[in-house]
Amino acid sequence: MPEVVIVGAGFGGLAAAKALDRADVSVTIVDRHNYHTFQPLLYQVATAGLNAADVAYAVRGIFHRQNNVSFRQAQVVGVDWGTNTLGLDTGALAFDHLIVAAGASAAYFGIEGAAEHGFPLYALTDAIALRNHILERFEAADADPSLVDEGALCFVVVGGGPTGVEVAGALAELFAMVLSKDFRTLDLSKARIVLVEMADTLLQPFSPPSRRHARERLTEMGVEVRTGEAVVRVTPTQIELKSGEKLATHTLVWAAGVRANPLAEALGVPTSRAGRIVVGPDLRIEGHDNAFAIGDVAAITGRDGELLPMLAPVAMQSGRHAAREIARGRRKPFRYRDKGTMATIGRRAAVAELPLHIRLSGSPAWLSWLGLHLVMLMGFRNRLSVFLNWAWNYFTWDRGPRLIIDPSHEPSPSRE
Amino acid sequence: MPEVVIVGAGFGGLAAAKALDRADVSVTIVDRHNYHTFQPLLYQVATAGLNAADVAYAVRGIFHRQNNVSFRQAQVVGVDWGTNTLGLDTGALAFDHLIVAAGASAAYFGIEGAAEHGFPLYALTDAIALRNHILERFEAADADPSLVDEGALCFVVVGGGPTGVEVAGALAELFAMVLSKDFRTLDLSKARIVLVEMADTLLQPFSPPSRRHARERLTEMGVEVRTGEAVVRVTPTQIELKSGEKLATHTLVWAAGVRANPLAEALGVPTSRAGRIVVGPDLRIEGHDNAFAIGDVAAITGRDGELLPMLAPVAMQSGRHAAREIARGRRKPFRYRDKGTMATIGRRAAVAELPLHIRLSGSPAWLSWLGLHLVMLMGFRNRLSVFLNWAWNYFTWDRGPRLIIDPSHEPSPSRE
Repeated sequence: MPEVVIVGAGFGGLAAAKALDRADVSVTIVDRHNYHTFQPLLYQVATAGLNAADVAYAVRGIFHRQNNVSFRQAQVVGVDWGTNTLGLDTGALAFDHLIVAAGASAAYFGIEGAAEHGFPLYALTDAIALRNHILERFEAADADPSLVDEGALCFVVVGGGPTGVEVAGALAELFAMVLSKDFRTLDLSKARIVLVEMADTLLQPFSPPSRRHARERLTEMGVEVRTGEAVVRVTPTQIELKSGEKLATHTLVWAAGVRANPLAEALGVPTSRAGRIVVGPDLRIEGHDNAFAIGDVAAITGRDGELLPMLAPVAMQSGRHAAREIARGRRKPFRYRDKGTMATIGRRAAVAELPLHIRLSGSPAWLSWLGLHLVMLMGFRNRLSVFLNWAWNYFTWDRGPRLIIDPSHEPSPSRE
Repeated sequence: MPEVVIVGAGFGGLAAAKALDRADVSVTIVDRHNYHTFQPLLYQVATAGLNAADVAYAVRGIFHRQNNVSFRQAQVVGVDWGTNTLGLDTGALAFDHLIVAAGASAAYFGIEGAAEHGFPLYALTDAIALRNHILERFEAADADPSLVDEGALCFVVVGGGPTGVEVAGALAELFAMVLSKDFRTLDLSKARIVLVEMADTLLQPFSPPSRRHARERLTEMGVEVRTGEAVVRVTPTQIELKSGEKLATHTLVWAAGVRANPLAEALGVPTSRAGRIVVGPDLRIEGHDNAFAIGDVAAITGRDGELLPMLAPVAMQSGRHAAREIARGRRKPFRYRDKGTMATIGRRAAVAELPLHIRLSGSPAWLSWLGLHLVMLMGFRNRLSVFLNWAWNYFTWDRGPRLIIDPSHEPSPSRE
């Protein structure tokens, strides 16, 4: 039976594996984590709205009923195209067909200190690290209020796309709803959230009314929105902006740049802008007829000649396309069907732009956002848990899991 | 207003702080974590039955409505009894009254390799580390089945008290119910759980019928029970027993020895067996009229002249006693009221010994155990989440959070 190896258990990789359900192939999914991460909600883990486990689902559990899928937890280190063998940190894996679905990672554009001191939001551990850090800054400021003037409670979010807008809004609600009650003696009026965006507007791909709505709501919530501004230098206690302004801060959330997973380069295939793998119209990797790249890691061109955005629907549709190419031995061009895009800002505040020029904002957009994300979540258990957490947060104005769980600060045994 | 400092946010410390609700004092709780850990359920986190956040509750959240309590996240490094000042890693804290409620930690009795390679179960991070390790061993064995013969799937639990029995039973159910479905190509009949206990019987403080019930149920579930046996030497891949037998294993769960938190010695006060602080009948620390030790960290003598066991009811009752001594300026001896003891083994299997010689086993004991632990959990949100997780696990034979979340394996930013 032909062996299909899928690198990455994100939206694209899982969609491809599921689409191979009835195909006469054996599928192996490789991922460095043993779980699928629901990236759109990582910002809620980072801001103590959801548990880490709510946005992660064991890959093996997803395929209990699909017998042709197996899983390997490993890091991909390279590929031998001559023998069709994938190199893993734990060994090697032969394939007849390869689907590269390795996703995206943060791009820092060479900005001094950004990679060292910025908090990205791609992995579950990123979200936990940011949550720990935010809560630790409040604990530190509470123990020593002089730290407030040194920037302990100034949180800078770079990037005015959906992730940046969502993080900034969620931080504002966390501070106003919960931390103000947790830290009664801290003067939270000194806590700042600064959202920095290089372009002149937030949420660039959205329509002008949606952009305005986002900006107004964030400003009402106390977020300082700085458009047409950029970060030029980062130290552990300061961020220098293009305008020359210096912000005393201990926290930089990096939601600005995105690029393909560096794995793309390790495969020795041609890459394009942002390190994305060059693919043909049928998503095959240039020069390799038995290999596909899909989702964020692939430079897929849309009908307008532009690269498709790094969004879950692109990953899922391209994953299913690659699976069908393999299952049916065909060569058809991939066509992306735009499902629209959404961003949430806070309680009953969101923007959504759907096909047929349908534009929502406020409560309708927020409810659509909630519903869509619940449906997309993997597994009934996670859906129920997220739903109950949201209901709890909404009605009690509380946030549950504001825990600083940091094993790196603890002694731990050393075993095999 | 007199300043009461409580060291430790466990059952005892929280009970003391709550009992000072109406007292005319200012209370500061110091803990190295920003959350209370519900230790009795840590073993369920370690065996992927519950989320980490289910058994932890932010200390600040517990006291939203009690204005005389504040919190400080810090590690205690010492005390200056001359100036009544507690030394913290982040500064100093003056007190008029001190309540030491620092709890217990693992005792390794100098057994070679046990401290380095054993997994204890006192902190939330311990439970996460053990869960990660168990799942990693299965992933490793799946990728390279030769590891099975080298002991990757042999799990040794040392200590036949309630914790050891609970871990062994939960592991057996995890393997049978979930991992057998996750790892279809692994021969799980080769997975072993060995429970080692030095005494001739499991659950020593329980009555003979309860002990027999526990042993029979565990054996039915596939646990190899070795009583009258001890560990003499531990390496990363092997455990040597007193009988001379050598077990190839990568995993030692250390549920054998318990001692007072080493902090007891850092305070420069007299300690007794297992490092517990010597206290008078009113729980005052010998030689320090303004300082109390309560719960696991204190050597409290019961009516029979024996030291009271390290159990949550002892901690809570002694914490409330110390609080009343301070609030009322009185000196009364502490009297412990025995509430009984319980241990769970698995689905519908538990033993409970209550006052008035009431003895339960099987489903009635299990239901009592479930109900009691739900009631004791802090916060409605956690109770609901644990209840739903238990219901889910029970009816679906599934376990949700079998996730390997290990930030130490990931790159992470360095900030202040």
